[in-house]
Amino acid sequence: MTRMDALPPELPPVLVRDAVRMALAEDLGRAGDITTLATIPPGARARAVMAARKAGTIAGLPLAAAAFAEMDPALHFQPRVADGTHVAPGAVLAVVEGPARALLAAERVALNYLGRLSGVATATAELAARIAHTRARVTCTRKTTPGLRAVEKYAVRCGGGSNHRYGLDDAILIKDNHIAVCGGVASAIARARAFAGHLVRVEVEVDTLDQLAEALDARPDVVLLDNMPPDTLRQAVAMTAGRVILEASGGVGPDTIVAIAETGVDYISSGWITHSAPVLDIGLDIAID
Amino acid sequence: MTRMDALPPELPPVLVRDAVRMALAEDLGRAGDITTLATIPPGARARAVMAARKAGTIAGLPLAAAAFAEMDPALHFQPRVADGTHVAPGAVLAVVEGPARALLAAERVALNYLGRLSGVATATAELAARIAHTRARVTCTRKTTPGLRAVEKYAVRCGGGSNHRYGLDDAILIKDNHIAVCGGVASAIARARAFAGHLVRVEVEVDTLDQLAEALDARPDVVLLDNMPPDTLRQAVAMTAGRVILEASGGVGPDTIVAIAETGVDYISSGWITHSAPVLDIGLDIAID
Amino acid sequence: MTRMDALPPELPPVLVRDAVRMALAEDLGRAGDITTLATIPPGARARAVMAARKAGTIAGLPLAAAAFAEMDPALHFQPRVADGTHVAPGAVLAVVEGPARALLAAERVALNYLGRLSGVATATAELAARIAHTRARVTCTRKTTPGLRAVEKYAVRCGGGSNHRYGLDDAILIKDNHIAVCGGVASAIARARAFAGHLVRVEVEVDTLDQLAEALDARPDVVLLDNMPPDTLRQAVAMTAGRVILEASGGVGPDTIVAIAETGVDYISSGWITHSAPVLDIGLDIAID
Amino acid sequence: MTRMDALPPELPPVLVRDAVRMALAEDLGRAGDITTLATIPPGARARAVMAARKAGTIAGLPLAAAAFAEMDPALHFQPRVADGTHVAPGAVLAVVEGPARALLAAERVALNYLGRLSGVATATAELAARIAHTRARVTCTRKTTPGLRAVEKYAVRCGGGSNHRYGLDDAILIKDNHIAVCGGVASAIARARAFAGHLVRVEVEVDTLDQLAEALDARPDVVLLDNMPPDTLRQAVAMTAGRVILEASGGVGPDTIVAIAETGVDYISSGWITHSAPVLDIGLDIAID
Amino acid sequence: MTRMDALPPELPPVLVRDAVRMALAEDLGRAGDITTLATIPPGARARAVMAARKAGTIAGLPLAAAAFAEMDPALHFQPRVADGTHVAPGAVLAVVEGPARALLAAERVALNYLGRLSGVATATAELAARIAHTRARVTCTRKTTPGLRAVEKYAVRCGGGSNHRYGLDDAILIKDNHIAVCGGVASAIARARAFAGHLVRVEVEVDTLDQLAEALDARPDVVLLDNMPPDTLRQAVAMTAGRVILEASGGVGPDTIVAIAETGVDYISSGWITHSAPVLDIGLDIAID
Amino acid sequence: MTRMDALPPELPPVLVRDAVRMALAEDLGRAGDITTLATIPPGARARAVMAARKAGTIAGLPLAAAAFAEMDPALHFQPRVADGTHVAPGAVLAVVEGPARALLAAERVALNYLGRLSGVATATAELAARIAHTRARVTCTRKTTPGLRAVEKYAVRCGGGSNHRYGLDDAILIKDNHIAVCGGVASAIARARAFAGHLVRVEVEVDTLDQLAEALDARPDVVLLDNMPPDTLRQAVAMTAGRVILEASGGVGPDTIVAIAETGVDYISSGWITHSAPVLDIGLDIAID
Repeated sequence: MTRMDALPPELPPVLVRDAVRMALAEDLGRAGDITTLATIPPGARARAVMAARKAGTIAGLPLAAAAFAEMDPALHFQPRVADGTHVAPGAVLAVVEGPARALLAAERVALNYLGRLSGVATATAELAARIAHTRARVTCTRKTTPGLRAVEKYAVRCGGGSNHRYGLDDAILIKDNHIAVCGGVASAIARARAFAGHLVRVEVEVDTLDQLAEALDARPDVVLLDNMPPDTLRQAVAMTAGRVILEASGGVGPDTIVAIAETGVDYISSGWITHSAPVLDIGLDIAID
Repeated sequence: MTRMDALPPELPPVLVRDAVRMALAEDLGRAGDITTLATIPPGARARAVMAARKAGTIAGLPLAAAAFAEMDPALHFQPRVADGTHVAPGAVLAVVEGPARALLAAERVALNYLGRLSGVATATAELAARIAHTRARVTCTRKTTPGLRAVEKYAVRCGGGSNHRYGLDDAILIKDNHIAVCGGVASAIARARAFAGHLVRVEVEVDTLDQLAEALDARPDVVLLDNMPPDTLRQAVAMTAGRVILEASGGVGPDTIVAIAETGVDYISSGWITHSAPVLDIGLDIAID
Repeated sequence: MTRMDALPPELPPVLVRDAVRMALAEDLGRAGDITTLATIPPGARARAVMAARKAGTIAGLPLAAAAFAEMDPALHFQPRVADGTHVAPGAVLAVVEGPARALLAAERVALNYLGRLSGVATATAELAARIAHTRARVTCTRKTTPGLRAVEKYAVRCGGGSNHRYGLDDAILIKDNHIAVCGGVASAIARARAFAGHLVRVEVEVDTLDQLAEALDARPDVVLLDNMPPDTLRQAVAMTAGRVILEASGGVGPDTIVAIAETGVDYISSGWITHSAPVLDIGLDIAID
Repeated sequence: MTRMDALPPELPPVLVRDAVRMALAEDLGRAGDITTLATIPPGARARAVMAARKAGTIAGLPLAAAAFAEMDPALHFQPRVADGTHVAPGAVLAVVEGPARALLAAERVALNYLGRLSGVATATAELAARIAHTRARVTCTRKTTPGLRAVEKYAVRCGGGSNHRYGLDDAILIKDNHIAVCGGVASAIARARAFAGHLVRVEVEVDTLDQLAEALDARPDVVLLDNMPPDTLRQAVAMTAGRVILEASGGVGPDTIVAIAETGVDYISSGWITHSAPVLDIGLDIAID
Repeated sequence: MTRMDALPPELPPVLVRDAVRMALAEDLGRAGDITTLATIPPGARARAVMAARKAGTIAGLPLAAAAFAEMDPALHFQPRVADGTHVAPGAVLAVVEGPARALLAAERVALNYLGRLSGVATATAELAARIAHTRARVTCTRKTTPGLRAVEKYAVRCGGGSNHRYGLDDAILIKDNHIAVCGGVASAIARARAFAGHLVRVEVEVDTLDQLAEALDARPDVVLLDNMPPDTLRQAVAMTAGRVILEASGGVGPDTIVAIAETGVDYISSGWITHSAPVLDIGLDIAID
Repeated sequence: MTRMDALPPELPPVLVRDAVRMALAEDLGRAGDITTLATIPPGARARAVMAARKAGTIAGLPLAAAAFAEMDPALHFQPRVADGTHVAPGAVLAVVEGPARALLAAERVALNYLGRLSGVATATAELAARIAHTRARVTCTRKTTPGLRAVEKYAVRCGGGSNHRYGLDDAILIKDNHIAVCGGVASAIARARAFAGHLVRVEVEVDTLDQLAEALDARPDVVLLDNMPPDTLRQAVAMTAGRVILEASGGVGPDTIVAIAETGVDYISSGWITHSAPVLDIGLDIAID
């Protein structure tokens, strides 16, 4: 079984609904879409076509669908592609039909989610494409937008990336400060193992090959090789010999990722794909009857 | 009185507190910072220095302060600069001291807010600096991150920008669809005036100088000149002769903003400063006793 | 185009739903409608007629509808009039049919919203009717019931009034304390203009014609003439000569509003219509099968 | 022990805090008090005196105090009277000192609660004063403002009234529809007793003396005599002979309550004191350093 | 009319929905059911049979139904028994059909509610069955699980028990500390009567027959006889002679309840039925197409 | 490093605060502690001693502390033991001093959390003590009380147990239905690995040694041996030879756990410790000045 067989990612519908309600409330404020209330009669109907204006990988269509449905269940949203699809400029993503007032009022929330998440997916896909010839996979970090972690992690999966831990609570990641307090890598890993349940993975960050050697003896699940140049990474891969999963981080970008991936590491983590990916430009053309 | 006299922007503390609690809950999940719980004794104390790794304009220090205070009121946060300050690489932004466990657990939330908002402020300041010799000001849009509108709008002000409306409810912005349903610019503005209270401004978006002429007769507060080349903008400024505020939008970026600003428009709106500004790289160096 | 052409007011459905859920939870407490649970079998069905017991202007039918629908989607609510209608005593407002238990449990929430909002609409309509021969419109204030601002503002529109700002954040209203700190009306307006975005209106409150003169030079959007006798208001209207919108406030009531309106001011604001309007008496007659 | 010995009413502080936060969020919106941010420097301090402009009975000072404290704990609120006090026009109710920005931003929320609740307390006290020579006490209903039930019930106590049930869940109140379905008063009371726990009182509403007779045999805790003229009420009191508590309702107002109270009933319920009491006019005079 | 005629208990649907959403959010976390997402295709459908593995009294089917419906309205839940039914081992309680992913994701929440509440109902029914030959009824306490009071009280009713007060606010229960401060039972009851509305019952806890005598003179609604041996309880019943309701508490369990009930008290309260009842073992067998 | 060196468990304070507020709101309802308001003067002060009435392992003191602090910050809570301590009957757990009204109002919430969580900790400690001579550790399940998962998991750690996954989202647990759809253990594990990030552990449940053999080839992190008798478990341990972690489940109780543990498995999971552990009896003796 290859990666390609993996099922498409999916967001739990209850999370989608809560996210969309929060965003609609933020945009509607206390008085709602006063421009539309002033100019569009209650009975007017509209049809809108959502299309990508640039090439990219789509993520967030269920959020867009929910934005319209929460605003008014009478709005009919038909997706034309699935999340995770790479589309060309001009590709139609969805068609929405129904009451014009509700469609106009939900438009921006739908586009804000879709544009941002497609931006994350597109950035992830761009990195993933460059290293498709290696064993390495792109993974994310906790450097996400406050409040959007679950949906940004989902967008990373849509872009072909793999998810790092979701929060402080679902995996152990031992960093320099933890090591310093514990008096060494081995001691820190031992404390982590003593504390964590058997369904919690333990990762340890190391800066040098000496630390890596110490870490390997203590048997973490994953070692994070921080800011090592490709040559050092290659030595690390050799030293490790498959005993633990290796993740590389630091200075990861479109220009550097190939050299990192070709060292043989398993995962390459990038904060850039969530904290700095530009939005994918998506438009909504509306016709009102 | 000049712009320089304007008081510094400020976020209502109750909004800051709610934002930070949401983000802490998201990161702590159900079990909290298990790595720190496993490795750092309850009594340990720490001192951390927050510093910019790149040059930029800072925004979000009150959110960072609140992240630490909400996690543990015993954490002492001392800002060394104020929001809105342009800093050089290496500049110390704040020092935090107190219980090590709480400091480590709140670190990422503090940095995620501070990095993102400083990114928005830096992008805004960059555009603003380029057009400082003109009458034009940079302004934002509703193309913000779901859930972060208030804080991103604040970051725009920290970067020297001016705020556009906050939601669908606090100003009228008549666009093509509204005009089409009303049968023309004049009719749409009349309906808006009839609907809106006297403390609501009315803006209308026009694509052509003919539409502008029609709009001027109907006396909106603001006209949005969408996607017009500089020459057309210049004609629009001449036609308007100061009767309404003019805002230009479309294709706004570091390379194009000067030409737009030099046409004499009053505001230039950019979605890019909120939806696509890269994060400002800010680090936290921690020493634990 | 006249005022009469304005579209009917509408509350965003998501706000309606949240308001109604809060009120139902408040009334149901922890155990629900124990009287009904004790006496009405689960399968019983009921039909109820909602009628006005006094003449008045109706506001709040969408909230009443939502109260029943949120309690049980099987309840069928048919409005017989629209919000904003002036009705005679005995007029049927709506008919509700469906499960008797749910109908009885939601009755009080529906009536509490409908009675209060119709009270606000009726008070507003009463003032509006008295000044229909003038250019002046009735407008509201921020003296609303905590938690009900959006729906009370909506009721004001149903009564033919116009809305003042919704909160501290959507318009500038400079009062005596702000002026005192800034050292004068002109300085305060200048600071406001420097701070506020171009989609924010600026209103300034003045007590004397001297202050009005100073204000007019500083070009606010609106001047609030506070507690001026009709003669002074008339002078203010003459001095202003249409350059800004004029709002009068202070001592506004059914007995005084005509004299104020006939001075030529544009808006007359009344806290009374929201903070002290008596409820409109509305009853629900229920028949259970 | 007489009624006078009863301890003063008190709102649970956690409820006060939640109520005030909701109201502040409603007023601050997404951008906060932009007028104050534009005109008052961050460091300015203010002193405010809160005074009644009309005579009345005060209720809500803890909510006013909390409004200022939640906005900024540095605001110092000193009440000068206690809730439940009847004050003369001009009476100072409280003094507030501290940061000017926070004081101005919280002012309206504090006054909206205090004015409305003092209005309820004043209306209640007015009715109570008229019947002080009788055994009857004024009590309230569920005809309260959505979201404010707990605080309005508290205001009724401040005005010397007694509280009816708080919701559908804390007492049984059998009305005509329940009786009709059960086939009679006795059967309805029996079902209620079979359903309700032993800490739940059972009240039944009757329209005639025949129904009263039937009810008395079934031993409810309270009988509600609905819309009976004084003579009939007097007969009902005689028939009952102290076996159950008697509550009168219908047409209760300042002009009618004395005649009702002198019939010898125990409680007289009024919806007017919560749904239609005008606000008590209270002002806040602020001086900023 | 006997107790048997009482209508079946029912939870307000709005409370059910809120409870279930909270529990689903708790279980789904930030990423949802990742096992199911990884292994079950989106289109798969499933059929599940919910059955009791042990004999017991069922409570919570509406919560189970809502758990599936909130996860996905396409899940069809058919209850085969009603809450309050005593079932034998193996009894089918419900059948669920629909999308496999949603069914698997909601399974644990449905079972956690159903198992716990059926455990409470079963424990209650066990005590109730032992004293069915007496006039006494089993009642509960406020010793419930934080957050589950309403649903646990409902389960007590499903088990044939009667509910004690729901919170600190819906009935008066005077205990030793209150009596001590007031200077005696009579004074405490007088203060309670002076404070509480006429729809609030007053119960007083006594430890001795002397205190009971003092209490009876003061006419509470209920007296709680705490930790009295059967002989003393019998004397208390004789002394009381039906003037007030008598509740016994302390040392209540399957082995002691008969002797307590046969003394003639009206209610016997047990914390054990809510705080220590073991779960009823209920399983869900799922077949996926 | 041994298990004994593990740091004590700790709940994130922000989670504690939210949990306690919810529980206080549930108990205070709309009117607060009316008994106390009626009988205890506002200025009264109290001192309370919290003591165990039975032997057990304590968990939940931070929640008890927070219950008092949230009710009134003036309440001073001094713990006398730490969570995780095994205490004898009569052991003093904490002393609380401060305003009597607040102390009485918060008492039940504090005790409900403390009793329930100490019950979970005591049950866990009981199982753990029996198998202390083996390598096996007690672990929990997702069979927790809705809404209390985080705190019950914490109580398990206080009792010396280890935590299983917290929700559906933080680890993969492949069960029979997932295997059936995937067509086998190996295929299911492969799909899980393809889907899950590198910080997610994968556990698979097997019923037979044949399935175990298939599973071992597919290299999960953990294998759950469901309902196997001790002899089969012993064979499973031998077959596995330390290649994966082995967890046993099914029929786990005080009587059976020793035989299971002595087979050499690593973890033994028990739903009983969270869903059916009786409360630990803890009392609060209060003296009011």
